[in-house]
Parts: sequence; C-alpha cells; structure tokens
Amino acid sequence: MNVLFAGLGSMGLGMAQSLLRADHTVQGVDPNSTRVDMLCADGGVDDLEQADALVSAVLNADQTRAVLFGPDGLADHLRPGGVILSCATVAPAFAREMEAEAQARGLHYLDAPISGGAAKAAEGRLSIMAAGSADAFEASEPLLDAMAETVHRLGDSAGAGSAMKAVNQLLAGVHIAAMGEAMAFAASQGLDPARVVDVISVSAGTSWMFENRAPHVVDADYAPRSKVDIWPKDLGIVTDVASDAALPLPVTQTALSQFRATSQAGMGDEDDAAIAKYVARRGGVKLPGDD
Amino acid sequence: MNVLFAGLGSMGLGMAQSLLRADHTVQGVDPNSTRVDMLCADGGVDDLEQADALVSAVLNADQTRAVLFGPDGLADHLRPGGVILSCATVAPAFAREMEAEAQARGLHYLDAPISGGAAKAAEGRLSIMAAGSADAFEASEPLLDAMAETVHRLGDSAGAGSAMKAVNQLLAGVHIAAMGEAMAFAASQGLDPARVVDVISVSAGTSWMFENRAPHVVDADYAPRSKVDIWPKDLGIVTDVASDAALPLPVTQTALSQFRATSQAGMGDEDDAAIAKYVARRGGVKLPGDD
Repeated sequence: MNVLFAGLGSMGLGMAQSLLRADHTVQGVDPNSTRVDMLCADGGVDDLEQADALVSAVLNADQTRAVLFGPDGLADHLRPGGVILSCATVAPAFAREMEAEAQARGLHYLDAPISGGAAKAAEGRLSIMAAGSADAFEASEPLLDAMAETVHRLGDSAGAGSAMKAVNQLLAGVHIAAMGEAMAFAASQGLDPARVVDVISVSAGTSWMFENRAPHVVDADYAPRSKVDIWPKDLGIVTDVASDAALPLPVTQTALSQFRATSQAGMGDEDDAAIAKYVARRGGVKLPGDD
Repeated sequence: MNVLFAGLGSMGLGMAQSLLRADHTVQGVDPNSTRVDMLCADGGVDDLEQADALVSAVLNADQTRAVLFGPDGLADHLRPGGVILSCATVAPAFAREMEAEAQARGLHYLDAPISGGAAKAAEGRLSIMAAGSADAFEASEPLLDAMAETVHRLGDSAGAGSAMKAVNQLLAGVHIAAMGEAMAFAASQGLDPARVVDVISVSAGTSWMFENRAPHVVDADYAPRSKVDIWPKDLGIVTDVASDAALPLPVTQTALSQFRATSQAGMGDEDDAAIAKYVARRGGVKLPGDD
C-alpha cells in the first residue's frame, strides 16, 4: 500500500520502518527533517502523489486534528475510500469526532491507539487497541499486520479503542506513581532497593510497571525510555473524560498531581521512574545515585 | 516440635493445619472455641505443658502484644531458648520492640509477616518476609518449611520483614484502589468489563491485584476472599510509618481514604474488590450486578 506516515517520533519512526519492511511504500511527514531523512535512508519516499492510507502517530489531539484536517491537512492526499489510522492517545469523544469528519469526506477511520514502547514499535510488535467500521478494519489490515503483534478489536465505531487505552493509562500511571512511593518508603525503612525489586516481583504487590520501572531506580538510570511528561498529558485525558462523566477518580487524580509536581521540579524529560526521586526528596530519603 | 499457635483465623487455621501435616504437635489458642475445636479435629492437642515455639497469627499489633506478653501471655509457656514467630502485619518499630522483649526473656524472635491468602496458608505454600537472628531462623526452620513455599530472608534483626510487608501492602492496596477506578471508568465509557480484563491483563497496565480482583467485579462476586476492612488497617500502618519518617505518600494516603470510605459505606466485610462499587456509585455508573 501507499502510506503517508505523520509523526516520526520514538514510536512513529519504528512503526514506519516496520511498514517499509513489509514492502509498503511510505512517505514520512514530520516537522523535524532529520527524522524524515532517517526514514528515507531506510527506503522511505518523498514523491507520493496519492495515498491509500494515512497513519498518524503524533503526540496529542491538537496535533491529530491539524495533521489530518487542518490547513495542509494530509487527509486531502488520500484517495477516495482511503483509510486513516489514528494512534495518538486521545479522548473517546475526540476519536468519534475525527471518525465523523473522515466519513464526511468519504474516508474510513480506525481509532487505533498503540501500546508497547519504542522497542516494540521498531520490531512491528505493538499492541493496538482498535475500533472502527468493518471497512476501516479491512482497509487497515495489511498495515496492522506490519506494525502490531496484537490487535484488540474493540468495537465497530471509533471511541472504544481510545477508551480502552485510557483505562490502560489510568492503571499504568497510578502503578508508576505507586512504584515511586514504594521505593522511597522502602529506602526510608533501610531496605535494600535491589532486594525490594526481587521480593515484590514475586509477591502480590507486583505490577507490570513495577517490574519494568523499579529497576531504573535501583540503577539510578533515568535516561528516558518513557518520559515523566507523558503522564500529565495521558492522566489529564483520563481525568478530563471522567470529569465529563461526573465520575470522581481520586487515586488517579492524585497520581496526576504527583507527575505534574515531578515535572515542575525539573524532571519532565527524565524517565518516568524519576517520580521516585520526587517522592524521596520530599522526605529527605536517599535513593541509589544520591550522595 | 511442640508448637503453641495463637490466632486460628482464615490464615492461622490453615497454617496450624500445615504444621500438623508436617508432624509437629500443635495446640491452638483462639477466643473462638469453634476454631480450636476445628484444629483438634485435625489432630491438635489441648494439653501442651511447655512449647518449643509460639506462632502468632493474630490480627494486629495490639493483639500481638497481648497474646505474647500480656497477662496470660503465651510467651510464659515457652521453654528457655524457644522461638516466637510473629506473623501479623505491624510497623517495623513494633517488631523491633517485640524482639527486644523476647530477648530479655531469653527467647528468640522472628519477624515473619505472611503473604499469599487463605488457600496458600492451608496448602503450606505461603510467602514469608522474615527477619531475625541466625538463632531465630535456625529454631524456626522446621516450621517455616511446613508453612511456606518461599521464605525471603531479609535481615539479621527484626524490622526488615515488617518493612518489606508494608512495601508490599502499599503497592497491593494502591493497585486494588486503581483497579476499582479503572473498572468504574471503563464502565462509564461503555466498555465491556470482561473485555477490559482480557485486554488489560496482557497490557502494560496490568498488576497481580488487577488480574486477581477485577474478575470479581466482572462476576459481581463480592464474597470475601480478602475483606475491604483489611486495608484501612494495613495502609494505615504504611501511612503511620511514613508519617513518622516525615515522608508524604499522597497516592497511598488517597487509596487509604477510598478504602475507609468504602467501609463506611457499609462494604467493610465484602471482598476488597467492592471498592469498585464505591467508585462507580459516586459517579452513577453501573457495574455487573447493578440493576
């Protein structure tokens, strides 16, 4: 298929490369020309006249709207009956709005938020939480096959994919915030952080995020695999959607406040495990890497 | 070994039965004579003159102090050089105080909080987070072998076992509270709860507690495997200990408030997954089992 790919960030570039490996023709679009050049070096093109599909892996709802339907929006370069796969984490209502806009232009739309991190994106092994019409799924299938190991098919119109992604981010975000409190608390009690990871990983207190992020605290390694600043955005979507539904989520709200505070303390571009440092410092507790 | 066993609740009875199966002689002690009769029916005795070991599986610190060293305290029935295994979830400082009291009487003390639930207690397959002197570990070994599948050896004096248990409870409690918010939020967005469990269980948002408790919400089955009222107690220990260390833990504190509110709403004796009902009802969201 001829594919326009918008957003060549840490996730998007790997996804676009996965499409190239599956012999699709891909033209990348990104404000950073270095990223476009990287895709061209792997076989990306720069002269696509008309595309069968548009994959959008930009950061948020505003960028999604602009890149699809704004002035110079890429939807204008899709053939009639082409498909849009939108992968940003957005509110379900926004996904429904984009689907309606696409359908009004005679295009298919797949609500397709992604999960799995940059390494799995590069390997074509993402999880995609997808919802859309049967036509949207059929038109997307060769692309989903190239980019994803698992496609959760969640409904026949947009919204359910974004809703499930929001549920996942609620849990993942709270679990990272809990990891931060647990590691700081453990250190305050004189426990060896490495031993805490060993014991908790085989106990009822474990989580996917604990097992993935707590070792970063043990190693004092805050090079960003996933940044603190993802969470004010993603948990903000969760609490906004919950607020629209008049549903109080106090634990999620508190985790959001903690990520915002960690970012405001200057750690927004660090790995999200840095929330442990924010918790520890407020209590004068030393973690690995502290003097 | 000749063992006095204090506290024949849902955990203690199974642990005492595991000791009987390993050919120890066990006398149970519990204010509820029915529970003592149950142990006697499995081979428990009622005429132990002097014991080699005292296992305490009572509810909390106050009961632990009373049953060990209060008027009629069972420590008086231990032979010189006997060992106390204390399994309640308590503050690390309390465990150190009990160890000092035991040592002043010429007894060994193992700080030995347990994890795993009633089923594993009955099978002799608990996890025990243990700390104490080499002598305390040596004296306890035949009993640990009978009751536990995994013994985490965390330090050579009391406190580290209770500290690690507190870390585990911090995480487990927050994860259950997050599960409650996630399931209520998912329902508010029209997602099928069973599908949420399927998808999240293979995603980065999963936790041991999510996978264990969320199915109770799907099944609307709140028969208590572990009660809501465990958490005001255990998370209260965590926040008290953190407060003594001047370490703010806002996410843990918020989870504690949610469990208290769930209990105050009349669900204290239900399964702790009932926190999902409390969250959902505040937002007028229907979960399985609601009309």
